[in-house]
Amino acid sequence: MTAHADLASTFADRHIGPRTSDAAQMLSVLGYPSIDKLVDVAVPASIRSAKALDLPAALSEPEVLAQLRRIAGRNRTAVQMIGQGYFDTVTPPVIRRNVLESPAWYTAYTPYQPEISQGRLEALLNFQTMVQDLTALDIANASLLDEASAVAEAVLLMRRSGKNKSGRTVLDADCLPQTVAVVRGRAEALGFEVEIADLSQGLPEGDINGVVLQQPGASGALRDHTAVIATAKERGVLVTVAADLLALTLITAPGEQGADIAVGSAQRLGVPLFFGGPHAAYMAVRKGLERMLPGRLVGVSKDADGAPAYRLALQTREQHIRREKATSNICTAQALLAITASMYGVYHGPEGLKAIAEQTHRRAVDLAGRLTATGAQIVHDTFFDTLLVRVPGRAAELADRAEELGYNLRRVDADHLGISCDETTTEDHIAAVAGVFGAGSDAGSGASETGTRIPTGLRRTSAYMTHPVFSLHRSETAMLRYLRRLSDRDLALDRTMIPLGSCTMKLNATVEMEAISWPEFASIHPFAPTGQTEGWRELITDLEERLAEITGYAKVSLQPNAGSQGELAGLLAIRGYHRSRGDENRTVCLIPSSAHGTNAASAVLAGMKVVVVATAANGNIDHDDLKAKIEQHAENLSAIMITYPSTHGVFEEDVRWVCEQVHAAGGQVYIDGANLNALVGLAKPGEFGGDVSHLNLHKTFCIPHGGGGPGVGPVAVAEHLIDFLPGDANRDISTDEAAGGAPVAASMYGSAGVLPISWAYVALMGAEGLTSATAHALLAANYVAARLNEHFPVLYTGAQGLVAHECILDLRPLTAKTGVTAEDVAKRLIDYGFHAPTLSFPVAGTLMVEPTESENLAELDRFVDAMIAIKGEIDRVADGEWTVEESPLRQAPHTATTLIGDDWKQSYPRELAAYPLRSLRHDKYFPPVRRIDGAHGDRNLVCSCPPIEAFED
Amino acid sequence: MTAHADLASTFADRHIGPRTSDAAQMLSVLGYPSIDKLVDVAVPASIRSAKALDLPAALSEPEVLAQLRRIAGRNRTAVQMIGQGYFDTVTPPVIRRNVLESPAWYTAYTPYQPEISQGRLEALLNFQTMVQDLTALDIANASLLDEASAVAEAVLLMRRSGKNKSGRTVLDADCLPQTVAVVRGRAEALGFEVEIADLSQGLPEGDINGVVLQQPGASGALRDHTAVIATAKERGVLVTVAADLLALTLITAPGEQGADIAVGSAQRLGVPLFFGGPHAAYMAVRKGLERMLPGRLVGVSKDADGAPAYRLALQTREQHIRREKATSNICTAQALLAITASMYGVYHGPEGLKAIAEQTHRRAVDLAGRLTATGAQIVHDTFFDTLLVRVPGRAAELADRAEELGYNLRRVDADHLGISCDETTTEDHIAAVAGVFGAGSDAGSGASETGTRIPTGLRRTSAYMTHPVFSLHRSETAMLRYLRRLSDRDLALDRTMIPLGSCTMKLNATVEMEAISWPEFASIHPFAPTGQTEGWRELITDLEERLAEITGYAKVSLQPNAGSQGELAGLLAIRGYHRSRGDENRTVCLIPSSAHGTNAASAVLAGMKVVVVATAANGNIDHDDLKAKIEQHAENLSAIMITYPSTHGVFEEDVRWVCEQVHAAGGQVYIDGANLNALVGLAKPGEFGGDVSHLNLHKTFCIPHGGGGPGVGPVAVAEHLIDFLPGDANRDISTDEAAGGAPVAASMYGSAGVLPISWAYVALMGAEGLTSATAHALLAANYVAARLNEHFPVLYTGAQGLVAHECILDLRPLTAKTGVTAEDVAKRLIDYGFHAPTLSFPVAGTLMVEPTESENLAELDRFVDAMIAIKGEIDRVADGEWTVEESPLRQAPHTATTLIGDDWKQSYPRELAAYPLRSLRHDKYFPPVRRIDGAHGDRNLVCSCPPIEAFED
Repeated sequence: MTAHADLASTFADRHIGPRTSDAAQMLSVLGYPSIDKLVDVAVPASIRSAKALDLPAALSEPEVLAQLRRIAGRNRTAVQMIGQGYFDTVTPPVIRRNVLESPAWYTAYTPYQPEISQGRLEALLNFQTMVQDLTALDIANASLLDEASAVAEAVLLMRRSGKNKSGRTVLDADCLPQTVAVVRGRAEALGFEVEIADLSQGLPEGDINGVVLQQPGASGALRDHTAVIATAKERGVLVTVAADLLALTLITAPGEQGADIAVGSAQRLGVPLFFGGPHAAYMAVRKGLERMLPGRLVGVSKDADGAPAYRLALQTREQHIRREKATSNICTAQALLAITASMYGVYHGPEGLKAIAEQTHRRAVDLAGRLTATGAQIVHDTFFDTLLVRVPGRAAELADRAEELGYNLRRVDADHLGISCDETTTEDHIAAVAGVFGAGSDAGSGASETGTRIPTGLRRTSAYMTHPVFSLHRSETAMLRYLRRLSDRDLALDRTMIPLGSCTMKLNATVEMEAISWPEFASIHPFAPTGQTEGWRELITDLEERLAEITGYAKVSLQPNAGSQGELAGLLAIRGYHRSRGDENRTVCLIPSSAHGTNAASAVLAGMKVVVVATAANGNIDHDDLKAKIEQHAENLSAIMITYPSTHGVFEEDVRWVCEQVHAAGGQVYIDGANLNALVGLAKPGEFGGDVSHLNLHKTFCIPHGGGGPGVGPVAVAEHLIDFLPGDANRDISTDEAAGGAPVAASMYGSAGVLPISWAYVALMGAEGLTSATAHALLAANYVAARLNEHFPVLYTGAQGLVAHECILDLRPLTAKTGVTAEDVAKRLIDYGFHAPTLSFPVAGTLMVEPTESENLAELDRFVDAMIAIKGEIDRVADGEWTVEESPLRQAPHTATTLIGDDWKQSYPRELAAYPLRSLRHDKYFPPVRRIDGAHGDRNLVCSCPPIEAFED
Repeated sequence: MTAHADLASTFADRHIGPRTSDAAQMLSVLGYPSIDKLVDVAVPASIRSAKALDLPAALSEPEVLAQLRRIAGRNRTAVQMIGQGYFDTVTPPVIRRNVLESPAWYTAYTPYQPEISQGRLEALLNFQTMVQDLTALDIANASLLDEASAVAEAVLLMRRSGKNKSGRTVLDADCLPQTVAVVRGRAEALGFEVEIADLSQGLPEGDINGVVLQQPGASGALRDHTAVIATAKERGVLVTVAADLLALTLITAPGEQGADIAVGSAQRLGVPLFFGGPHAAYMAVRKGLERMLPGRLVGVSKDADGAPAYRLALQTREQHIRREKATSNICTAQALLAITASMYGVYHGPEGLKAIAEQTHRRAVDLAGRLTATGAQIVHDTFFDTLLVRVPGRAAELADRAEELGYNLRRVDADHLGISCDETTTEDHIAAVAGVFGAGSDAGSGASETGTRIPTGLRRTSAYMTHPVFSLHRSETAMLRYLRRLSDRDLALDRTMIPLGSCTMKLNATVEMEAISWPEFASIHPFAPTGQTEGWRELITDLEERLAEITGYAKVSLQPNAGSQGELAGLLAIRGYHRSRGDENRTVCLIPSSAHGTNAASAVLAGMKVVVVATAANGNIDHDDLKAKIEQHAENLSAIMITYPSTHGVFEEDVRWVCEQVHAAGGQVYIDGANLNALVGLAKPGEFGGDVSHLNLHKTFCIPHGGGGPGVGPVAVAEHLIDFLPGDANRDISTDEAAGGAPVAASMYGSAGVLPISWAYVALMGAEGLTSATAHALLAANYVAARLNEHFPVLYTGAQGLVAHECILDLRPLTAKTGVTAEDVAKRLIDYGFHAPTLSFPVAGTLMVEPTESENLAELDRFVDAMIAIKGEIDRVADGEWTVEESPLRQAPHTATTLIGDDWKQSYPRELAAYPLRSLRHDKYFPPVRRIDGAHGDRNLVCSCPPIEAFED
């Protein structure tokens, strides 16, 4: 491995924090002569790769931009009228630049520490409020991954909540085809029946658990679902409506029609097409179902001073807590995209959204008139934005001609085309498309129809988005300031290290982010003709191949749009493999007790039975228990899921042995790639025993966390599992069942839109840079562990007392002695200007610190100094100077208003509260709220924007 | 005029702050039934335009981006090897996005209120420190407009400081041709002699005031100037060296050779080519000359607590204070570009800059070797980055061939080409260019020369950029956080209204800003072949024509890169006109006493004699005095310079009469367009009496102020003055003297790079939008005036008691009564979260408020409420509750550290200091320093980064 010093003036030198001289100092603290030596000792020789990564030479920043421009140039933009769940839209530039392109927003972490996340929590609450209003349902969550998986989640919610638990699930025939494909895949794994039926003909007979309707339908048809919903309710059948949010500004809302659940995509509210994703899906439910809601939910609670404060509500529902009892494996959201959509709502307000919907509808009506005049048949009388046009035998020819002119239509079959209008559709577009069908150029708008095609009974009369937030920020100046104000309340990577164990909060470099908003990447429809997407496919193939090289697997699929979906896809691949060999009984999945809860949840959703393997005293997998469990379940053993290095932050020496045991028993080995940042360039899961892994591009490969999404969780598999990788949900499922495994996302490449980030990272770093990054991540973690160990004991270590890329600080002895909890330390760190480390995972009462390679020595020392100072404060509690309740630890965090308040009541001075270290006097972050009472909010669940009066003193 | 209500959903609706309902409320406060009626009363009928503006229909944001993409597509990027003062460079993406593209930086105002400007002041101090170190001179300023005008300023500085005041100025023959052209223009107006001489042959005989050398020379030659500088010093001749900052990392610095002054461009330190500008020029001087330095100078002082604090130093030197005694008319800087260059220095550090210089030099040496092998002659043995290549008779042919391959070379003459290398030059580029000259493809680097061509005696040995700031922020993460930290210290338009009278701090919309960083605009060399710049020329012609329509003039030149340069160009046009008619005696310029000081300074620099016209009691021009002055100077009357509406914020009813008086006496009328924001769409200076005006695109036309530059000050003239508009400094001055007036900037289109902003603004707004903006600016100013008048009397009003687009609040009675000064109010406003209005201009002891059309009613009310609350505080002083010294007004602003300090000593409570209004509890800005003692800093002048220890308590 080449030392980092040789990389000076390369991008790696900018990505990696410590300078050569810093690294030398850190190594001297650890007592190692070189970083190579440290790596040699820390990483078991038994798993080390023999060869350096085989990747193209590292590019400079200008070179990578030139390459990306070349690749982008291979995509062709067009007027996108394909629809099918994806519509072109205008991202207001002020929102694009100040949210999607602003590090203050995109580098933020999931708001698990709500006191430093009030800005993005407010933005997400706006999203929920908008969705609740538009759907007329009581509670909406803070987004889901995509519409298809949101429908799948709704189906599962209905199955566990409905009266007819054993009944089948019925999907209307006019549901989006990709939705049907994804739901079918989930149902197949879980063993329940899905029926596709034309619900406009009424509800089928028999035992039904729930139904799913689409509004407008995939065909564009706008139908009045009132009757079928009423019948369903009479029969105790739950109802989900997959509804278009823009259409809901004009048509009766699902909640008004009696639906229990509404789901859909918020993409067309300002989020680019992105070749399929990332987009924010939504789910809203009627009262009574809120505790069943999957995903994240922002709620209003109060802080220690009784002031209103936001935080994630009902977190006990989350899969990582419920583990093998989980009912969903969703553990993230599409925060950045939900925020974008919410700000689009704030920017346009209800009148603006309605005006956009009306114009969209007018265009569709205009087009219908022109096409009818040419003799084409508009199949449905009532529609919102999409026409199903019957042109017997001519569909392909017309679509080709339109494509030549730069218009993409939906090729439904030989006789039908779909044409969708959207916010960007102009009169010129309508005239051009009509021209393709033979309309004369004089068939102007005068001749066209201008009435509405929304049935009278379906026209919306109720108000929505009446909260002042949707009318206060309409000028760009006001919008800009609102965005700045919210982001200033939060701490993100642009202000501080976020030392979150297991989350790998490293640099998201500007150059990596640049290409994603270029129109040649952002404006491509996922179902655009392949001739228009050569650039995208080059980039995706490239990235898949490079990730395969890095992980040591045969093939990678980039479809999963979150780590959890990667797990699901990987486990479904294992399931498919066993079944293809007739091993239908192999359904047991072994999972160590220290695993992330999502592992178990994903196994459940893949139709597996979870068996927990114990942890030994040293934190590693308990060998005896593993052998016993394998023996006990030998016949039925499907897989083991392990994380490497372990969630304890340790390179377990015996990982090959573990893999061999499982393989010997006929099981497959799933290696969770959450901690891949400790391996890249040094060892490959595909080489030391894994059959399948998922990666987290939003961890190791620099896709920013975006305040809780987007994520990308590619799944990587060995040769024998390739055929079971996720298939394309957009293939014709009636004719093409055999190709690939069940899709886990609506579009083939999931969150394609953010893949240029990871592509750029790998291209910029090259083999040497990536390997050096890993080495520096190990160095940083061991440096922090070594400096903090005497103050907060490091719970688990591997060889020579070294950790991997993160370390667990054990607070439990101090808690036992003083009452000061890990949470107190986490909150007190806010006063020191830091985001807390991971709290109580994987071991309750501990903090897990992962510094990553991107933090320089000054920042590592700033963190260590803060922790040591906090230890000093704990000592004062231990010494009896303060009770824990009256200590600055329990009172933390301190707001500026409290600190400046005329009635300071604490037993310690203000300056000690605010400026425990002198350096804070120069750069101080003040949280906007004090410690938040989560339980209060869960007891009094409020998940929409509180009235402005709530903020008055 | 169409009311604003009809513009809903257009861009105008986003640019203009007040909603229709807000405007109605504001009108009701004023007692007007409609905005049209208000405008009719406020603007004198005698000047109103008869017709609406004739401009293309307003475009939407996507449409304007599409148009800009089309225009950009007409430019062709190439490898730019022309040199001649402009070199390609890599703007690090982290700096581009987080400075040039960040509203926190680009919307900031000039740091006249230093307490809310510490971030950008630190960045500018870094710039000064870098320049001082690289030039080895004692004091550098915070940037100048461009290299050519910086040399002109240096020449003027030498003329007023040198021993031989009447001596001629000698420019070395190897100075940049555009520099020579600009200096000649200035000299011609001021009547001193400039000689061009080959100083490598020694200093000419006779009486010389100062000399200017170029290092490296325009020809690329690197010469040792030690001897000629020594001779100059012996003879009492001052020496200026125009030096390349990148070259100075490798060669002996001007200060080390005894130069008195160094000037040059910082463009190649990360600032895009921008088709010629904006770029930051620099000037550094030896100790003793600092009080003569033109432009802005950042210095270190201390705040009320004795903490180090930055502010503009030696402001008494500034032209607006010295008026007709001014020695320079520079009243701005290129802050945003200087900050970019400084951050490039911070990012690369001394080692990085040196490595870039060494690589650049290596490329040039390599090329020289390859070209020599082809038989071409390299004219100079010693060079840094630029080769002068002798190819008798073949220059044009070779340049054409290179151009075809995508390489732009400098066409010196029929026998010579110039070829410059820079940071972006690769080995492939060298090989390709050598190939054009006939080098074989095997003439690889092995065959080429690798030695240095820097003469031994000229190699730099001294250290530079040793301050820690140039080594602490090398990783991108560290850089990002440094940029965020600095910007968080400042208040810019992204957080608050900046109600600066005469500065028109309106929205700088994101969509307007987008195109400027596209490579097709940003990467074009100003001297690129015209075939490559069709897009630029389309955009510039378009903008010139639209501005001519808006102002009512015959022709506009966009060359002046600041308002002051526009004034100079306009006055030079008047001068040229008179002289062309034989009226060489017409040199008297009448200027009202209320004029901005720059008017007088520009007149002085245009060789005019300033005669002041008195102001009447109502603030208008004193008619009797005007008549008397015209009579007194009738024979010699050149012009009058007036501002309209006046600097008192009033539409003077009699402006036509004033113009007629001057015209009748043979004078020309110069109407300063500083306040054009009150006129656009309503009245045209070219129609109501002006012969020439300059505009400020950085005011009325949305170019952001950038923390004090870039500015653009186009000059607009009537038909008879067209021939006297500034010419092209890059024309061959030896053969082409007749074409146009003296150039005022180095490149034909000055700050071309930011012109897409104004182009987009006009295209987005259209005639109706622009006119509506003006009307709303008038409405907002009158609303604020009406609401504040009872608390702070409005000093001047026009018809019906209305103001124009700004109003002067008279603090003098309150000051007389209480001792509370306008400055106290300005500083106390910081505690309320506001940037102060314009302080003591045009009337000492007042505040001038200009809200602009972009502020919505909520923000206007927030400001008014703050001012009323401050009035309440003044009343408490008046009532004797506090002395002025112990009042929160005089103690303002309050820092967080003071407010939280354990030793609070004020006689008022902390909460009153920090949260005088309840709304501040939710969004509070804390200034990083308390009130700054400017006088202390001027007495103890320190203009480079203080040691880190200075910040310890």
